[in-house]
Amino acid sequence: MNLILLFPEDFIDDSRARLHGRRYEHAREILNVTNGKVLQVGLLGGQTGTGTVLAIDATTLDLEIQLDQQPPEPIPLTVVLAMPRPKVFKRVLQGLTTIGVKKIILLNSWRVDKSYWQSPALEPEAIRKQLILGLEQARDTMMPSVQLQQRFKPFVEDTLPDMAAGTCALVAHPGASQPCPANVEKKVTLAIGPEGGFTTYEVEKLVAAGLTPIHLGNRPLRVETAVPALIGRLMPCL
Amino acid sequence: MNLILLFPEDFIDDSRARLHGRRYEHAREILNVTNGKVLQVGLLGGQTGTGTVLAIDATTLDLEIQLDQQPPEPIPLTVVLAMPRPKVFKRVLQGLTTIGVKKIILLNSWRVDKSYWQSPALEPEAIRKQLILGLEQARDTMMPSVQLQQRFKPFVEDTLPDMAAGTCALVAHPGASQPCPANVEKKVTLAIGPEGGFTTYEVEKLVAAGLTPIHLGNRPLRVETAVPALIGRLMPCL
Repeated sequence: MNLILLFPEDFIDDSRARLHGRRYEHAREILNVTNGKVLQVGLLGGQTGTGTVLAIDATTLDLEIQLDQQPPEPIPLTVVLAMPRPKVFKRVLQGLTTIGVKKIILLNSWRVDKSYWQSPALEPEAIRKQLILGLEQARDTMMPSVQLQQRFKPFVEDTLPDMAAGTCALVAHPGASQPCPANVEKKVTLAIGPEGGFTTYEVEKLVAAGLTPIHLGNRPLRVETAVPALIGRLMPCL
Repeated sequence: MNLILLFPEDFIDDSRARLHGRRYEHAREILNVTNGKVLQVGLLGGQTGTGTVLAIDATTLDLEIQLDQQPPEPIPLTVVLAMPRPKVFKRVLQGLTTIGVKKIILLNSWRVDKSYWQSPALEPEAIRKQLILGLEQARDTMMPSVQLQQRFKPFVEDTLPDMAAGTCALVAHPGASQPCPANVEKKVTLAIGPEGGFTTYEVEKLVAAGLTPIHLGNRPLRVETAVPALIGRLMPCL
């Protein structure tokens, strides 16, 4: 937690916030705060700044809040990701948030196990938890949007073409003839398949929607390795 | 497991291998093999090829082995990594192996918790297990070397300068004035700090050893995100 993320309901007046639970415990047990200590804070959807400890007791922490800085810039990238295994999904979602992606679409694919869509990791509160952890890590306040698209064909035929239009639109596909470009100076739309890749049919549909297949080398990477490697390569800065 | 990694002791004659345990179970339970099925195999330190199922019973799998292809090219990168938390270390080590890094140095640093060096994850068998998992994922056969350097100063003063000489030698450091370069067309030496970064003193010592500080943006990334993002950006191909 490099930043304590604040929510409107934390405020007890215009400039003071009162924290309980996880953030309180972090301040007390990890940061060992005492009165007067200055913490990095940010308001969800708003600015970042400082929280000066006014009081800490057995259950609550009061902070004097001053917000005067902008959160880091989002990266101009939409990620369309075949739904990974739930355990991996949590880490990937947090990683995407940390790296600054603001639009994440989870897509079905032939090689996605149907059971993944029933996972408790996909419940709104579970997703929100990972996004908050990612924002706290990155000292960011701007929540990504996460969409679930359980039907491949209607999404790829009806929604993806407009989303891809005017962007550098790519699908990471082992065996593609072109390598992944670096330092792309425009918005990027990036589709990433499941373990084992998109099927030939799916790649054809993604190409028809305007995406160009690219590869990152000969080695089949796990999604948690491939995603940051692709983003680190594509974006001029993070 | 995209490739079954074979060891000399698996061979029962010149062209036949007999598997038990983890690889047998993978073939039986995940791949559902039957006689005649062709699996991707590779010999540790040697070529890759195919293993045709000759027989499978309740405890063993016999394969007819044909090795005739080269493993993927290593990437020309030495990683000097401040020792991460043991749980993260396992994943990062496996990820580095998968992405094709062949020289990994784990370094002490002021912000590395001393207890990390006592972790069972650092025992040779535990390290070897992660390397094998990484090779199997990447369809590779060439084991990375892993060195433990528990003393920062002698390593950085006496060993690192020669290692860095003639390479593009970098230390990833939040707040550095230069961004991380992309598509570097020579050998790379890359140092990556712990959560919270190398100290100012440590960065000065790394600079004196010939490394240039570079950053990957404003967001503090977790090591498991930063490592593939840096490598994906730096290397012309993986």
